[in-house]
Amino acid sequence: MLPENKNLFIRINSLRKKFSDCRIDSLIIFNMSNIRYLSGFTGSEGALLIGAGQTSLLVDGRYTLQAGLETANIQIIECKDKIQGIIQAIKKYNLKRIGFEADSITLEMYNKLTSCVPQDAFVALTDELRLIRACKDEAEIDLMKKAAEISSSAIHSLIGQIKPGCTEKELALQLEINARRNGADGLAFETIVAAGENSSLPHARPSDRKIKKKDFIVIDFGVKYKGYCSDETCTIAFGKLTDRQKNAYQIVKDAHDRALAGIKAGVSAADIDRCARKVLGKKYGRYFVHGTGHGVGLEVHEAPRLSPISNDILRPCMVVTVEPGIYIPGFWGIRIEDTVLVKKNSCEKLTKMDKELTIIE
Amino acid sequence: MLPENKNLFIRINSLRKKFSDCRIDSLIIFNMSNIRYLSGFTGSEGALLIGAGQTSLLVDGRYTLQAGLETANIQIIECKDKIQGIIQAIKKYNLKRIGFEADSITLEMYNKLTSCVPQDAFVALTDELRLIRACKDEAEIDLMKKAAEISSSAIHSLIGQIKPGCTEKELALQLEINARRNGADGLAFETIVAAGENSSLPHARPSDRKIKKKDFIVIDFGVKYKGYCSDETCTIAFGKLTDRQKNAYQIVKDAHDRALAGIKAGVSAADIDRCARKVLGKKYGRYFVHGTGHGVGLEVHEAPRLSPISNDILRPCMVVTVEPGIYIPGFWGIRIEDTVLVKKNSCEKLTKMDKELTIIE
Repeated sequence: MLPENKNLFIRINSLRKKFSDCRIDSLIIFNMSNIRYLSGFTGSEGALLIGAGQTSLLVDGRYTLQAGLETANIQIIECKDKIQGIIQAIKKYNLKRIGFEADSITLEMYNKLTSCVPQDAFVALTDELRLIRACKDEAEIDLMKKAAEISSSAIHSLIGQIKPGCTEKELALQLEINARRNGADGLAFETIVAAGENSSLPHARPSDRKIKKKDFIVIDFGVKYKGYCSDETCTIAFGKLTDRQKNAYQIVKDAHDRALAGIKAGVSAADIDRCARKVLGKKYGRYFVHGTGHGVGLEVHEAPRLSPISNDILRPCMVVTVEPGIYIPGFWGIRIEDTVLVKKNSCEKLTKMDKELTIIE
Repeated sequence: MLPENKNLFIRINSLRKKFSDCRIDSLIIFNMSNIRYLSGFTGSEGALLIGAGQTSLLVDGRYTLQAGLETANIQIIECKDKIQGIIQAIKKYNLKRIGFEADSITLEMYNKLTSCVPQDAFVALTDELRLIRACKDEAEIDLMKKAAEISSSAIHSLIGQIKPGCTEKELALQLEINARRNGADGLAFETIVAAGENSSLPHARPSDRKIKKKDFIVIDFGVKYKGYCSDETCTIAFGKLTDRQKNAYQIVKDAHDRALAGIKAGVSAADIDRCARKVLGKKYGRYFVHGTGHGVGLEVHEAPRLSPISNDILRPCMVVTVEPGIYIPGFWGIRIEDTVLVKKNSCEKLTKMDKELTIIE
């Protein structure tokens, strides 16, 4: 058995151990990242049915061959209609209490399923499954380190390539080319390169705006490597800044550093968020318009969540971002982000760019 | 009023005209492509509430500024929790019968909403909304033509860049660089470059496999331009083919041409699928493991659907793909795809690559 398959076997079995607590005899997985995590199948459509003694992957004809190549010890069932395939499998295996991810099934699909199988055969699960991918194993951590290295190195190269008059779009393209040449399989999300007033939009899209003196340039970038995402943000200064800009950068940097220093197993995610928010204080707190961080893995945003309303507790081997920012509408914005691995008594940075203020003259 | 905003106004009003048939006084839109289509907002999270007299866009703090810049005549409501924001808006506007997209809301979100507002205030809509983006207006068609031009031109350039020993990954990267340099904002989907035995996987991912003599190379590629997608597949021969391969290519090409010749307003989408399938016949039909095509627009897969079980009727200004293929497991695959604009008595190809067999010696 390949080491990778051994991990998948462990993952599926640890889910089976939840069956009795959840009062289910089987579990249907619809979320494609969860399906990949549990089976190895990387397609865009399918459903994974985990019974007490067998696991089946339902796919359409486009994926029958691929599913067979990518999985082991899983029965591949080709079906033209996913709903009909599930209903037939439920009958075949005589399943009576089928758990499913309530946050990964549409109401329409649920209504179709329950029009064919009694509604009380289905058990909606939410919190029980929310953290299944949150703690990474060694193989995953290795892939995430590699993804982080590729994107940090691409940002590092880009900084040497920024020239006055470059547009945001040109820089984003160059950054992506750097990353792909370093081995990235693709992007984890749409690249943000936002300069000057555009940096005050937390989710700006690269535009034809040219880089000018006194610009902050926010670069929020992540790649995919063998399915796993990286996520890092650098805010670079182009030319000399005003004192207010310098001061604001230092405050965001302090918020980032303090949050990072607080991260260890057992700490509440909301406390980390509060820690960053406290540093920003009354002056800048109201300009920090998003949460402090989120889990990263097969998806760029996954559990846990580091926000004021999070109930998550950090656990060893979770991988999370820390990304405080301030955004002065119409003027400028700053965000500083690292992705870190939670350890027993501290955390380890996976992203590699130094976060001291870099000024390009 | 900008022409674009005028289009948005027309789109929202044409939805309002459905209110009485659907017995609703308002409509919540969750699908982000529909939100973009109706409001201009391009963020990744939000909800659009369309009442009889007002339209509100609910966003979180990351998007307040952006939503204001991207929309017109729409009230922007910032809310930390989408569900709570919706519930407050329902109370504020005294809404009694709220339609929603049953295929774009998770069961979890539906359960949360109906735990705060009586369940009979919500009206699940499916078919009523499925085709709202299917018929494109002039501005959309112009953007889709541009997207198709960019990707066709990138494929055309790539063909001159294929050398023996190139890997699939290298070709995919070169193709993407070509497209970005031509003005693509990003990719419409993960690029497929699949050679030899890999081309027998309809959704193969680019690998380190090198291009060899007698390979079919399937290149399935699409870009995004100002939000709109392109989608085109070319199957190229590298070196001389066997007679069986040549014959198979010609049959797929015939299936593609016949399907294309049948496309016009008023025709059933299932008939177009049957037309392609008929050409593949007994010999190859069983190796055609997916539908003949799908709509394209803000999403690369959207309504209508061209498959044996589709109930859709083609209408003027729909934009759809035609992409028959055959896949001989473990040996090779062929897919030929164009994206076309449906017209009254025919269709117009938006994708520009010639589909005669190209042999690279």
